Amino acid sequence: MNMKEANKKAVEIILKGQPTLVGIGKALDVIPGMKEDIFLHAGPPITWERMSGPLKGAIIGGLIYEGKATNQAEAEKIAESNGIKFAPCHHHDTVGPMAGVVTPSMPVFIMENKTFGNKSYCTLNEGLGKVLRYGAFSDEVIDRLKWMEKTLAPVLKEGLKIYGGEMNIKNLIAQALLMGDEGHNRNKGGTSLFIREIAPSLIRSSFDRESVAKVIEFIHSNDHFFLNLTMPAAKCIIQAAEGIKGCSILTTMARNGTDFGIRVSSMPDKWFVGKAQDVDGLYFPGYSLKDANPDIGDSVITETAGFGGFAMAAAPAIVQFVGGTPKDAIRMTLEMYEICEGENDTFKIPALNFKGSPTGIDLAKIIETGILPSINTGIAHKDPGIGQVGAGLVKPPRNCFEEAFEEFVNSMEKELSNE
Amino acid sequence: MNMKEANKKAVEIILKGQPTLVGIGKALDVIPGMKEDIFLHAGPPITWERMSGPLKGAIIGGLIYEGKATNQAEAEKIAESNGIKFAPCHHHDTVGPMAGVVTPSMPVFIMENKTFGNKSYCTLNEGLGKVLRYGAFSDEVIDRLKWMEKTLAPVLKEGLKIYGGEMNIKNLIAQALLMGDEGHNRNKGGTSLFIREIAPSLIRSSFDRESVAKVIEFIHSNDHFFLNLTMPAAKCIIQAAEGIKGCSILTTMARNGTDFGIRVSSMPDKWFVGKAQDVDGLYFPGYSLKDANPDIGDSVITETAGFGGFAMAAAPAIVQFVGGTPKDAIRMTLEMYEICEGENDTFKIPALNFKGSPTGIDLAKIIETGILPSINTGIAHKDPGIGQVGAGLVKPPRNCFEEAFEEFVNSMEKELSNE
Repeated sequence: MNMKEANKKAVEIILKGQPTLVGIGKALDVIPGMKEDIFLHAGPPITWERMSGPLKGAIIGGLIYEGKATNQAEAEKIAESNGIKFAPCHHHDTVGPMAGVVTPSMPVFIMENKTFGNKSYCTLNEGLGKVLRYGAFSDEVIDRLKWMEKTLAPVLKEGLKIYGGEMNIKNLIAQALLMGDEGHNRNKGGTSLFIREIAPSLIRSSFDRESVAKVIEFIHSNDHFFLNLTMPAAKCIIQAAEGIKGCSILTTMARNGTDFGIRVSSMPDKWFVGKAQDVDGLYFPGYSLKDANPDIGDSVITETAGFGGFAMAAAPAIVQFVGGTPKDAIRMTLEMYEICEGENDTFKIPALNFKGSPTGIDLAKIIETGILPSINTGIAHKDPGIGQVGAGLVKPPRNCFEEAFEEFVNSMEKELSNE
Repeated sequence: MNMKEANKKAVEIILKGQPTLVGIGKALDVIPGMKEDIFLHAGPPITWERMSGPLKGAIIGGLIYEGKATNQAEAEKIAESNGIKFAPCHHHDTVGPMAGVVTPSMPVFIMENKTFGNKSYCTLNEGLGKVLRYGAFSDEVIDRLKWMEKTLAPVLKEGLKIYGGEMNIKNLIAQALLMGDEGHNRNKGGTSLFIREIAPSLIRSSFDRESVAKVIEFIHSNDHFFLNLTMPAAKCIIQAAEGIKGCSILTTMARNGTDFGIRVSSMPDKWFVGKAQDVDGLYFPGYSLKDANPDIGDSVITETAGFGGFAMAAAPAIVQFVGGTPKDAIRMTLEMYEICEGENDTFKIPALNFKGSPTGIDLAKIIETGILPSINTGIAHKDPGIGQVGAGLVKPPRNCFEEAFEEFVNSMEKELSNE
């Protein structure tokens, strides 16, 4: 199979993906390879020493949440002395927004690609502001995580069972794109649809009425709740296209706050990394670029799977959150067609007369055109313990694509000489 | 005050409007002037003999629902023999979608314009297909109306009290316009937002859990549920601008399925009517223009108040329901600025870089430019008892505007000669 055929096959697999929410479980119980002493994090592999402030903050919070430390100093000591092992979410079929820290006790969504049977995992979204994924770890952050473990997750878990055990998330994302979402940084439509779908089943659950009301209020208070469903949906869509010989489609883009890393279908286990870049965006009052950590998080899996920033033309109102104008949003989507192998047959963009969202990022096209993928993202404070300070747009570093392409070409040549 | 000043004042009043849901009551108890033997209907005044099929069907259904008749023949006899009086919703501060029939026992939303204190009323939306407002009156229609009276309305009424007694509907419409709604024929965002807002309070109500779950499922099953909140919101916005001397802004557009009628601010009680027109739209499978009743309903109050079809550029996905392309939707909104006095400061259109929706239809500008207002609408079957057969776009008849303008000019001249 030549590259053209391989890439076509990859896009076919991506389009056939049917991400379906099939359950909620404890990370330790359900994530493959998860252990008591492993903490997962966003982006490519990284050591404690090289971690950025928000990732360190989230690890500290995770250690406190797990009861392994009672304060920052104790937590740092554990982290420094290898008292805990770190692994990328992506090495465990998982994705995490921003710092993306997943600890063994955390509840996670279980997403299954019904077409191919592969599964992916993601934590439940905590809300905005002072939250673990942005590096905050104060009592309110830990208390919220405990409430999510003890109330939010069990209520949703039983609700999903009553709902019928499965929720078609692809369909909800497609609807949300007709409601001004792009599925990464604007998820107001998706969050609304999720509430509409699940609320009656939550009411029919065995939980007390006040707990059910609080669960709906929690989701209602956070338009990003649906992000933690679009992310594992994207992950299980793209997972199925990993490992295709000769295929130059990206299957991972991810950042840990220090490094930006990519992986390519034909070399599924190999990371190519560059320096995580500064985000161009809108800041919350009192903050500016000098407070900002570089680009961080696995949420760019949405762009990798054919929506998110790539479908920004569907979400003109997002510019109020990330900056720019609705025309810029359309321009951004149009540019992304240049580096994509296909168009989505389910995720449609009304403003482009229902053209399918650009889908299947081709490394070869990135090199050929010089156009880098465009990413929507939140902005974390660079220091641990603070949280979100804004949101904006970012481009990845060019070198990781160049290095990946060189290796891709080498492997293709090796393949040919072996034939 | 000259016309220019009067029109400016009218738009100021329109923009200051704060439509707020303040309660749910029984039509007989809360609608001013409502009596046991009055049925309200959409559009300008009309006799039973001249009523179109869907309006007759809704009257028949209303008589059965009220227990005044047990079948179509009995109902028709009552209607023919003046056993019931008919009055336009608009004569009772009320608006009704499609046939717009409001009978004494029906529950209605109570909307208050918090800035000016005036109130408006509207029934609760029944859903799509075989429903009273499209002229259907089978057992399933009547049973649903009874369930709405006995369960839906009481649950929502208590829920609204628990919510705090008031819900700001203007804010929800503004949010919905950022979610791809235009507030007339696309209300998916608004319906979603309403569910998000009210669900926790419904759960905290004294009603059994199954009733609460069914209420949310009912709203969830019908993306037009929010229409019956945008309509009275529009009505109470525009009511406040009625009766301004020298003002040529339209304060009513409405159709009864036979006639299209308008009223002008300076002549608030005077209807100018023309023939209701055919709707250009998309039909449900098995139906076509030959099955369609002409334009019907009070829902054009949304356009009158500065959103609905006038904000169609905010709702590109609506074209899947009413026909045309997203570009047509933008063109339609742009054209409406030509006949409007102002731009909305709350209802913004993302695709037009957050330009305010065209607001305050100026009769003088319609005459000057020759541009008629554009309206989104549902399409009812022309015969009683069937229901909705499609949705589309329609223009009003030109003569009612010409006649209104002639009378407006005459009254202005009289005014001047009296000074």
